[in-house]
Amino acid sequence: MTAPATADPDDLAAPSRRHLLRQGGALVGGAVLLGGLAGAEAQAAGVGADNLPPNIPGWMTAPGEAMGSEPYGLPSRFEKDVVKNIAKNLPQYLSAAARTPLADLDGIITPNGLFYERHHAGVPSIDPVQHRLMVHGLVDQPLLFTMEDLRRFPSQSRIHFLECSGNPVYTKPYGKTASDLVGLLSCAEWTGVPLKLVLQEAGLRPAAKWVVAEGADAAALTRSIPIEKCLDDAMLVYSQNGERLRPQQGYPLRLLLPGFEGNMNVKWLRRLHVTSEPAYSREETSKYTDLMPDGVAREFTFYMEAKSIITRPSGGQRLSAPGFHEISGLAWSGHGKISRVEVSVDDGKNWREAELQEPVLTRALTRFRLPWQWDGRPAVIQSRAIDETGYVQPTLAELLAVRGTNSFYHNNAIWPWHIGADGEVSNALA
Amino acid sequence: MTAPATADPDDLAAPSRRHLLRQGGALVGGAVLLGGLAGAEAQAAGVGADNLPPNIPGWMTAPGEAMGSEPYGLPSRFEKDVVKNIAKNLPQYLSAAARTPLADLDGIITPNGLFYERHHAGVPSIDPVQHRLMVHGLVDQPLLFTMEDLRRFPSQSRIHFLECSGNPVYTKPYGKTASDLVGLLSCAEWTGVPLKLVLQEAGLRPAAKWVVAEGADAAALTRSIPIEKCLDDAMLVYSQNGERLRPQQGYPLRLLLPGFEGNMNVKWLRRLHVTSEPAYSREETSKYTDLMPDGVAREFTFYMEAKSIITRPSGGQRLSAPGFHEISGLAWSGHGKISRVEVSVDDGKNWREAELQEPVLTRALTRFRLPWQWDGRPAVIQSRAIDETGYVQPTLAELLAVRGTNSFYHNNAIWPWHIGADGEVSNALA
Repeated sequence: MTAPATADPDDLAAPSRRHLLRQGGALVGGAVLLGGLAGAEAQAAGVGADNLPPNIPGWMTAPGEAMGSEPYGLPSRFEKDVVKNIAKNLPQYLSAAARTPLADLDGIITPNGLFYERHHAGVPSIDPVQHRLMVHGLVDQPLLFTMEDLRRFPSQSRIHFLECSGNPVYTKPYGKTASDLVGLLSCAEWTGVPLKLVLQEAGLRPAAKWVVAEGADAAALTRSIPIEKCLDDAMLVYSQNGERLRPQQGYPLRLLLPGFEGNMNVKWLRRLHVTSEPAYSREETSKYTDLMPDGVAREFTFYMEAKSIITRPSGGQRLSAPGFHEISGLAWSGHGKISRVEVSVDDGKNWREAELQEPVLTRALTRFRLPWQWDGRPAVIQSRAIDETGYVQPTLAELLAVRGTNSFYHNNAIWPWHIGADGEVSNALA
Repeated sequence: MTAPATADPDDLAAPSRRHLLRQGGALVGGAVLLGGLAGAEAQAAGVGADNLPPNIPGWMTAPGEAMGSEPYGLPSRFEKDVVKNIAKNLPQYLSAAARTPLADLDGIITPNGLFYERHHAGVPSIDPVQHRLMVHGLVDQPLLFTMEDLRRFPSQSRIHFLECSGNPVYTKPYGKTASDLVGLLSCAEWTGVPLKLVLQEAGLRPAAKWVVAEGADAAALTRSIPIEKCLDDAMLVYSQNGERLRPQQGYPLRLLLPGFEGNMNVKWLRRLHVTSEPAYSREETSKYTDLMPDGVAREFTFYMEAKSIITRPSGGQRLSAPGFHEISGLAWSGHGKISRVEVSVDDGKNWREAELQEPVLTRALTRFRLPWQWDGRPAVIQSRAIDETGYVQPTLAELLAVRGTNSFYHNNAIWPWHIGADGEVSNALA
């Protein structure tokens, strides 16, 4: 019943799509002509003998479910498998991680229930009334804030991505799906106080060059932030996608450093120590450093470089038939806006520019799309992001040539997917 | 311990906020100087005898909760009261409604768990594999689509608000909170197929002027949509804020008509009947029409007019002390972008322009903010929206003068809040 479309995909990007979509009676989707429905199928679809008007499916014959049973709503029971992708090989309290199911999502907003997680000592259950933020060190007056105090400051809302620096790590196995590979990545609308305002309230001394942020989890996760970032777009956030932060995202208060590696966006924030030097904490010496080929550990890699991934089709999915398929994915850069995404469907020989979904926001996920006609033969598809600084996302081979094989974090390589003749999509570098 | 700020709020909007925030040592929030902490309070706050470094609060002394218990995450238990505001006076299956708790939210994105709901026959539980969309009537070839078919079409993502046309109705009591008043309002990032593409696939006949959309709930909710809207920005959406639609929002498929009154955005969409005339269905004749003073019922009021509401401070809240408070709220227009929001803090005598949070998107909620120094005396605060067409949100008196007292829907009046000397905020028109 499915009639694959055969037109040139370039036509689809043209202002009028009418020609492609109707060419030779071909259908872009696998839609069925009503006249072609057989008896049993018509019955299942709720279509009457004359096809018009349709019969009534079962769920129209009695009132649906009442509303009051779920004062805070949940997804459909038919979506029960769309959940966080929880790493099974990590000791839960020492190094837990859960990835966002990227291939199941559309757009750029990650719903809070599926936002990626990375914990070093579990998720503390913090009473917001008891929580305090201390600002001390090289300031005119050390201050202690309640959450209510912070809520009284002028606020702002921004859409930004967060990404773990080990997304993915350089060591095999890389995983099968987009979520396995780069699911330590999410994006939300954050609301909070510009950090600058809070620091100005305390009064920075001239020697203030760093702010050491400490979380109120049992790991007391601690990172040193250059003062320039603190006075730029850093925020103390208390809300995510409208509602208050989830416990897994730092409730009741999180440091947000747009574009910086995930772990620096300290959750459960309790202390900002203004200093003249970095703290050289555990998480910036033994962890989250890059061991280079010459044995030197590169510390303080703050900004996440430009990167992209095709999420549809991606590993673990299957193309049902040759013909039209939209290639869709995500691109992002810690350095600013994505200016271009290029997609190759022939193993990197040729590249075409994808369409970017407006609005393209700075340091936010950007959804890209490219119409594609799959001819049914094996193919390798991949995307590369270019950000507003002109930086081009590298291949894995290019990265390894510079970083060597001891490197662990900050892998922003292009990631190709292999499509078999049967339509199966798999990791081309696994 | 609280030192209220006393500076001119105009200073706060200036590029450098340093002057205001530190003026005379005053604090914008109610923050406490560390040196001023007494023993018991210091202990509770986890501050040591010398204030530096702080003692360790209880939740840092043992690992937190594991991650695997909630594969789909939920808000903190301390936020258990932030839930949908469910109307108790409506018969659940006939006319159920749940409002978004607007005063508890920040930014513009409504999390899916708190998105407003309005049902006419409960929430059907639809198996997406069984669901079909039929397109028939004045088309070249009637078509039947599965969800997989629709997922294969080119997609797009847009952030748009949805609002019920009775938000609020004209009849008292109007309610106490922002949610009671205008909580049948939410905003999300929607992903789906441009409706235009699907109609072009079927091929519109020249006489096609309307599309009659039918939902698969037991009410078979039916609305007629002008063909111009269907060929403009209308979408068939399957995802909301990244994930698949919730059942309460039309899972697996909903018609999205940006800027049109909520009930026209037909949920559980099963049928698009292309016609030359509207259907004059129940929901566009006996319901969702406006009874004018001369007895004529005004039908087919599609676009929601420009509107705004201050959500903070708003009814049911209390200002803790005189001094600095940020006034924050939401503005929106079915006709396009919000171009300006003006706020009055003196019962409508003077109006000042609020700051709009970028990016300002068409037919989306827009967050506005204005710094305010409350002097501790009774006050009436209110906002009015102006959209890109130049339309100015009217007062309730102005609306009633035109619409009369039999009108029920499409109340977009300015809504003032009264602030008492004790800081209590209440509905000034209740």
